[in-house]
Amino acid sequence: MNELRKDCLLDRWVLITENRGKRPHDFIQKQCEAKEGVCVFCPGNEHLTPKEIISISGPHGWTVRCFENMYPATSLDFPQAFGRHEVIVEMNQHNKNLQDLPPGAIREVIDMYCNRICEISTISGIQYVLIFKNHGEEAGTSISHEHSQLIALQRVPTLVEEELAAYKKYHSKEKRCIFCDIAKMEMDSERKIFENDDFFCFAPFASRFPFEAWLLPKRHAGNITDLTNEEKNSLADALKKILEALSKLLKNPPYNYYLHIAPKGEDFHFHIEICPRVTKLAGFELGSEIIINTMPPEKAAAELRSLL
Amino acid sequence: MNELRKDCLLDRWVLITENRGKRPHDFIQKQCEAKEGVCVFCPGNEHLTPKEIISISGPHGWTVRCFENMYPATSLDFPQAFGRHEVIVEMNQHNKNLQDLPPGAIREVIDMYCNRICEISTISGIQYVLIFKNHGEEAGTSISHEHSQLIALQRVPTLVEEELAAYKKYHSKEKRCIFCDIAKMEMDSERKIFENDDFFCFAPFASRFPFEAWLLPKRHAGNITDLTNEEKNSLADALKKILEALSKLLKNPPYNYYLHIAPKGEDFHFHIEICPRVTKLAGFELGSEIIINTMPPEKAAAELRSLL
Repeated sequence: MNELRKDCLLDRWVLITENRGKRPHDFIQKQCEAKEGVCVFCPGNEHLTPKEIISISGPHGWTVRCFENMYPATSLDFPQAFGRHEVIVEMNQHNKNLQDLPPGAIREVIDMYCNRICEISTISGIQYVLIFKNHGEEAGTSISHEHSQLIALQRVPTLVEEELAAYKKYHSKEKRCIFCDIAKMEMDSERKIFENDDFFCFAPFASRFPFEAWLLPKRHAGNITDLTNEEKNSLADALKKILEALSKLLKNPPYNYYLHIAPKGEDFHFHIEICPRVTKLAGFELGSEIIINTMPPEKAAAELRSLL
Repeated sequence: MNELRKDCLLDRWVLITENRGKRPHDFIQKQCEAKEGVCVFCPGNEHLTPKEIISISGPHGWTVRCFENMYPATSLDFPQAFGRHEVIVEMNQHNKNLQDLPPGAIREVIDMYCNRICEISTISGIQYVLIFKNHGEEAGTSISHEHSQLIALQRVPTLVEEELAAYKKYHSKEKRCIFCDIAKMEMDSERKIFENDDFFCFAPFASRFPFEAWLLPKRHAGNITDLTNEEKNSLADALKKILEALSKLLKNPPYNYYLHIAPKGEDFHFHIEICPRVTKLAGFELGSEIIINTMPPEKAAAELRSLL
């Protein structure tokens, strides 16, 4: 039965519609394909990108590489859009996806995320560093070679502000972290997808997107940079697992993910929100800010669990 | 120069990025095409839709036709998703777009909107009737025959709530309508697109989408149902004009529009927000709720003005 649900955290509503009785294969899109032709992110074409900021190297050259976006949305040179906009190329291979890498190579991407957050956070005037990934054209990327981006801003992004406000409100009332409590609750629920030593993956109660999945560290940690070595390895493992399952179920679907970390000087619970983009946001969503999700998260979690 | 802008009304931020120097033709998508095959919205196939609720008829049968959505998101029968979900087929022709109709035929669509709002608003428990349109696959429709939809809900949609809160806050301070004041301000600005006798069309200061356009009645009117006969004709004329200009500039682009009317018992200023869907919402937008718009509204308005 269809159900209007309020998010556990935010004043955000979704309309879960079960009555179309969709199965996972109904959500399969035209597959994301590696584009042919000259790829500016491939080794040998480094001269086609802005100057390298930092890279991680292996025996055969760089494995993860970071540079400023060619057309930055924000820049230290833009007084009205102060910030940074960088690209993080996640691998030197052109035809692989992030989840195809061994956990150690995904760990390098995580290390690069941590490096950029640490470095950029120290810039005077920067309030937040948002790391995000667009995979596939429907998720907003034009370059198929796997990469993440970061946009740093002079203000805390609206959605993070809202999550932080909810976090604080709950904390002042319950003296506990709302994310820790959600994890505890969902650990035994039908929305659990999987867990490993340090991370927990579940489908949020008010999922906006079919097969939306959140990754939370089990330990209360505010920032990805606060994770221990072991926890970072667990995150690499968990990211690989959930992306593999999504890719298997939905045949390499377009997706976005983004990291929500503690704003400067604030307490928070770091997490990654993974959003497959297999449906469109339409007039109802734009006009109401209520999202229709045609795949109940309980069913989505069951499908993903069956593959793990 | 790029610029982070706050909306005049809401705590909503957009990042206007000019540095890609895009021209209108850079936003042209694969054209929305009429699909071939059996169309359930065409005359003769009425038996393929749910039962007709109401229609407007001319000498050759119905011209505008309304029925319940085949897979309703909300229904009077859904306790957890109480409401109505209806489809309004805007014409009996399969291969035309709304703006191709003569103003009198567009006026009939407006009359149908008014009829449905009036009727559904009287249902006990219904708090809001949201009318919206999805044109083209990228805007979320799977059926190309031109139609609008309405979803009625037991609660005022989040975005309308936010607009109403901003409206009230401004009114209590200034004793004036914020929409009237925005219209006054934009009437002489470079964001003006056009006006006719009763309606004004402009690109909002913090446009979320390239070529976003808002239609406002010049007179303070809370609901489309409050408009006079002449004003409804003006609205038909204005809707035709702006959709023609968008179609000419962007070659029949995918777009959404939605009507924001006064919630029951509230004062408000009715308007229509038209959102071309020629770019994708990506990870940054989902993770921050700040939208990057690569077409400054001042340039968008100038391009549209040149066609009017």
